[in-house]
Amino acid sequence: MASMKDVAKKAGVGMGTVSRVINNSGPVKDETRERVLKIIEELDYIPNEMARSFKKQKTKLIGLMVPMINHPFFAELTYYIEDELFKSGYKLMLCSSSTDREKELEYLQMLKKNQVDGIITISYHDIYQNETIDLPLVTIDRYISKTVPLITSDNYAGGVMATERLIKAGCKKIAYVGGEPRYLSTVSDRKRSFLEIANKHDIPSIVFELTDETSNRLQASNQYEEYIAEQFVKCNLDVDGIFTSADSFAIAVINALRKEGKRVPEDVKVIGFDGVPSRVISGTALSSIRQSVEELGRLSAKLLMDVIEGKKVEMHNIVPVEYYDGDTC
Amino acid sequence: MASMKDVAKKAGVGMGTVSRVINNSGPVKDETRERVLKIIEELDYIPNEMARSFKKQKTKLIGLMVPMINHPFFAELTYYIEDELFKSGYKLMLCSSSTDREKELEYLQMLKKNQVDGIITISYHDIYQNETIDLPLVTIDRYISKTVPLITSDNYAGGVMATERLIKAGCKKIAYVGGEPRYLSTVSDRKRSFLEIANKHDIPSIVFELTDETSNRLQASNQYEEYIAEQFVKCNLDVDGIFTSADSFAIAVINALRKEGKRVPEDVKVIGFDGVPSRVISGTALSSIRQSVEELGRLSAKLLMDVIEGKKVEMHNIVPVEYYDGDTC
Repeated sequence: MASMKDVAKKAGVGMGTVSRVINNSGPVKDETRERVLKIIEELDYIPNEMARSFKKQKTKLIGLMVPMINHPFFAELTYYIEDELFKSGYKLMLCSSSTDREKELEYLQMLKKNQVDGIITISYHDIYQNETIDLPLVTIDRYISKTVPLITSDNYAGGVMATERLIKAGCKKIAYVGGEPRYLSTVSDRKRSFLEIANKHDIPSIVFELTDETSNRLQASNQYEEYIAEQFVKCNLDVDGIFTSADSFAIAVINALRKEGKRVPEDVKVIGFDGVPSRVISGTALSSIRQSVEELGRLSAKLLMDVIEGKKVEMHNIVPVEYYDGDTC
Repeated sequence: MASMKDVAKKAGVGMGTVSRVINNSGPVKDETRERVLKIIEELDYIPNEMARSFKKQKTKLIGLMVPMINHPFFAELTYYIEDELFKSGYKLMLCSSSTDREKELEYLQMLKKNQVDGIITISYHDIYQNETIDLPLVTIDRYISKTVPLITSDNYAGGVMATERLIKAGCKKIAYVGGEPRYLSTVSDRKRSFLEIANKHDIPSIVFELTDETSNRLQASNQYEEYIAEQFVKCNLDVDGIFTSADSFAIAVINALRKEGKRVPEDVKVIGFDGVPSRVISGTALSSIRQSVEELGRLSAKLLMDVIEGKKVEMHNIVPVEYYDGDTC
């Protein structure tokens, strides 16, 4: 943080002049005044403790970091977070990173400059590992550290439900299809329970995940899931049951299977994960593990406001999921 | 705006004391200091011109008023607005009103308190009629006044395209299905051209719009379009071609028709409006007038930044649309 001394030095004036400019008291030449103001801005100098705390108290602004606001799950989540914050007089600064790591980092730097009272983050990247965040922070779906409250769906239970459903429906060889497993640690619980249940029932199981360069490039677009689904179908693994890490993958997989002449659910049963009610044009409803997006969103907002108010909060918050019995399993 | 005198009076201290608290200079009792700070906050007093302009310069925050962030069209639009603003160092404050007029008004009051550099608005309500907005403002889809730049798709041309398509495809009796026509003046151009083209070709045409209490209550939920579609199908108007004011209505109408055993496009042809690429589970792709959501979003952001910088801008900005040839017409 720049000091008044830094400003005076850079402007080539005495500290008294800087003080007079800041406090708008006493005579200062227009030219000097302008120069001082410019340097104050350049150095991001905040006049004094009072101004700083004043500014801090006045923000009532929360930063929300989401990978893509145009993804149905994140749009729905944002809807409830905004609604809950608004009730308590907080406003939302939307930081949609387009899954771009550099953009996320830039946003983080911005947010750290005391421009918000706190941050809710749902990140695909490991941007918090080397950062010291001295702002109230809560995280959705991705574990950051012991001191950052985490809100997540019961991913493990969801994986159990989905896998047992597939087995109960008669599947003999099952696959888990997903993407981006590296940073979404809690989401990988879906895969973990899939493998455990398959193993318990002695059913052959396959995990299909891609993290290659092409998929990285496609992440921000709608083609990402399509790409993974096509690669999966190409491999011709001959499975009769599929559990996907997200609904978007399930839909892409179903479309890819149908292109190959496979019928869902007759030939292959598919269960997704997310359960965001989306308007579908056909009569086919996706079978899916349904997260309570409303509960996830509202709880995140409430927890962050509690942290801001200095209240003690639960560090590991798990929101129950349920199975939605659609037409694809 | 409260003055230093107001603060001194309310705190029961002299102006010198207030000044010392503000500038963190000279002795002030802790108790007095706290009282003065509290009153400064209560009265929303900003220390001086310098602090005010300092605060103003530092915002770089744009308010975006959207009806529902969890609607695919608004989520997509927000995605591009955010991306364009970010490139120029602006951040986005998301004001998702849940189509609640009171919430919109509350947001507007918040935004007016100089907390943002400008506003992009896409409102369903007439909240700007009795308001003086002295902030840079641009509006999407809804005309506000001669002095507020408007960005909209070529709704009229879209209505012409859709209606001519239906007629060319052999439709003999056509309907326009939509909702909420009162405040979305530019969207009603879709209906206007529908009627003009039907008239020109001497084809019987029906406009079906609901603005009753039930539909008002349902607006914020996903049931709104379903309700209108059901009401429409119930009326049994025996049309063979339908143009809807939005894709969401088209999807709801198709689902309602199919429930009644009607085939689309064999029995009834349907064309929507919006064209937001949405992941659909079936092989059926909706025929629709496609707006360039990217262009609408980026242009809105650019125009607002131009207004903020004092540049002269075009007041009426029309973005071309195109027909997407899907499976429903």
